[in-house]
Amino acid sequence: MTATALPQKPAEVRQLIRTGAWRGVTSGVAPGHVQANLAILPKDLAFDFLLFCQRNPKPCPLLEVIEAGSVEPVLTAPGADIRSDVPGYRIYAEGQFSAEVPSLADHWTDDLVSFLLGCSFSFEQAMTDAGIELRHQTMGCNVPMYITNIPTTPAGSFSGPMVVSMRPIPREQIVRAVQVTSRFPATHGAPVHIGSPEAIGISDIDRPDFGDGVEVRPGEEPVFWACGVTPQAVALNSKPPLMITHAPGHMFITDQRDADVAVL
Amino acid sequence: MTATALPQKPAEVRQLIRTGAWRGVTSGVAPGHVQANLAILPKDLAFDFLLFCQRNPKPCPLLEVIEAGSVEPVLTAPGADIRSDVPGYRIYAEGQFSAEVPSLADHWTDDLVSFLLGCSFSFEQAMTDAGIELRHQTMGCNVPMYITNIPTTPAGSFSGPMVVSMRPIPREQIVRAVQVTSRFPATHGAPVHIGSPEAIGISDIDRPDFGDGVEVRPGEEPVFWACGVTPQAVALNSKPPLMITHAPGHMFITDQRDADVAVL
Repeated sequence: MTATALPQKPAEVRQLIRTGAWRGVTSGVAPGHVQANLAILPKDLAFDFLLFCQRNPKPCPLLEVIEAGSVEPVLTAPGADIRSDVPGYRIYAEGQFSAEVPSLADHWTDDLVSFLLGCSFSFEQAMTDAGIELRHQTMGCNVPMYITNIPTTPAGSFSGPMVVSMRPIPREQIVRAVQVTSRFPATHGAPVHIGSPEAIGISDIDRPDFGDGVEVRPGEEPVFWACGVTPQAVALNSKPPLMITHAPGHMFITDQRDADVAVL
Repeated sequence: MTATALPQKPAEVRQLIRTGAWRGVTSGVAPGHVQANLAILPKDLAFDFLLFCQRNPKPCPLLEVIEAGSVEPVLTAPGADIRSDVPGYRIYAEGQFSAEVPSLADHWTDDLVSFLLGCSFSFEQAMTDAGIELRHQTMGCNVPMYITNIPTTPAGSFSGPMVVSMRPIPREQIVRAVQVTSRFPATHGAPVHIGSPEAIGISDIDRPDFGDGVEVRPGEEPVFWACGVTPQAVALNSKPPLMITHAPGHMFITDQRDADVAVL
């Protein structure tokens, strides 16, 4: 089943994922609804990770935290099951990738806490609606991402540099790009940096650390937003005994609409 | 020493508090700087309380969390000591008030986690700057506060109704009041309700549950904001073995400026 043939309602898409009828990349699926990055950690690390997210809201915008012993995101997707409703999971042991699995049926324990974090799809839609081109979409590739020299604020065992995504913006649209993304603090919000990549420790804009390089044309500046790869990188850096995430591009689809998480 | 004779810098005021040279109500002190409500809980309740705040950002806007074993608010007031720099503390045992003390020297243990939460002073200044009268200030009394039928989102042992503060606003200024307070999500943000007190379970607007009643004049509507009494009430309701708060009106003065915590 192609993404365009899927139902529009998040609950119906999640049902197809749960039964295994569809398990694809979620870009463009259930349009207008908020999608989430997933990070699952053992309970004894949960306070420190929650505090890390609270201290670093731009890279780690919390949509919901599901407490140990529960699997239902009651606030953002009532009726869903976090063990089965994400189209792909990755398991990490001691910070090392160990397996990619279609369900957590064989991996779940009652001491796991699940964190749902905003992703950039919501603000990218707002930019598109505002007439701002997204170069990586035009080029049909992944957004470029870079490890910067911007430190995050540590919490417990969690610390490390901020990872950012980059979108080239024509100079006359930069103010508008700041305005429209500022409305979405739950999905990374306003940029963290505009212009000079060197100033934030990026030596070669054409060679991103993750994703694909995109062209920055004359009259454009590279604009950088905090990226949801940050919490995953920081968490794995601390080598937790177990950590589970979504597989890249395979997000959890919530019932919330983009408008629900927008401010002003 | 009167409040107007105090130094303007937060660090200098905190030094006077620490030495006992001044320990008054902090309204109007170090103008333009963010003041904070204080809640201190044992470490084993800290995850649930942090999660409660994350789920209820309007009544519980977190400015900073000081981890167990530390007493310095490194993000909002570097060099300060949370045990000595608040002008008055209240100790609660099993949810019952037991003492008001000038310092925590005799009460501190290394398993206590301190939560600094935004208070309404910042957005009240923004309203005053916008030409909106604050009736309780005009009348020289405390803002009226009410227990509502609006539920908070529970976390662990923490649950209970939202407490709100009320300010009467002329109808032609209500939109502006929403706009200016929306800029301060770190200090309760936009109103939670406009008009009809009955709709949120308030039977008699003239008899607040806390604070003082104020006049609502013809042409005005009562406008309600989430109140920082909520987290304290909810926490005490769960009867923690120990909880420490600031004494009413005796806030912690951070180094942050109102402009630092404003959005847009």
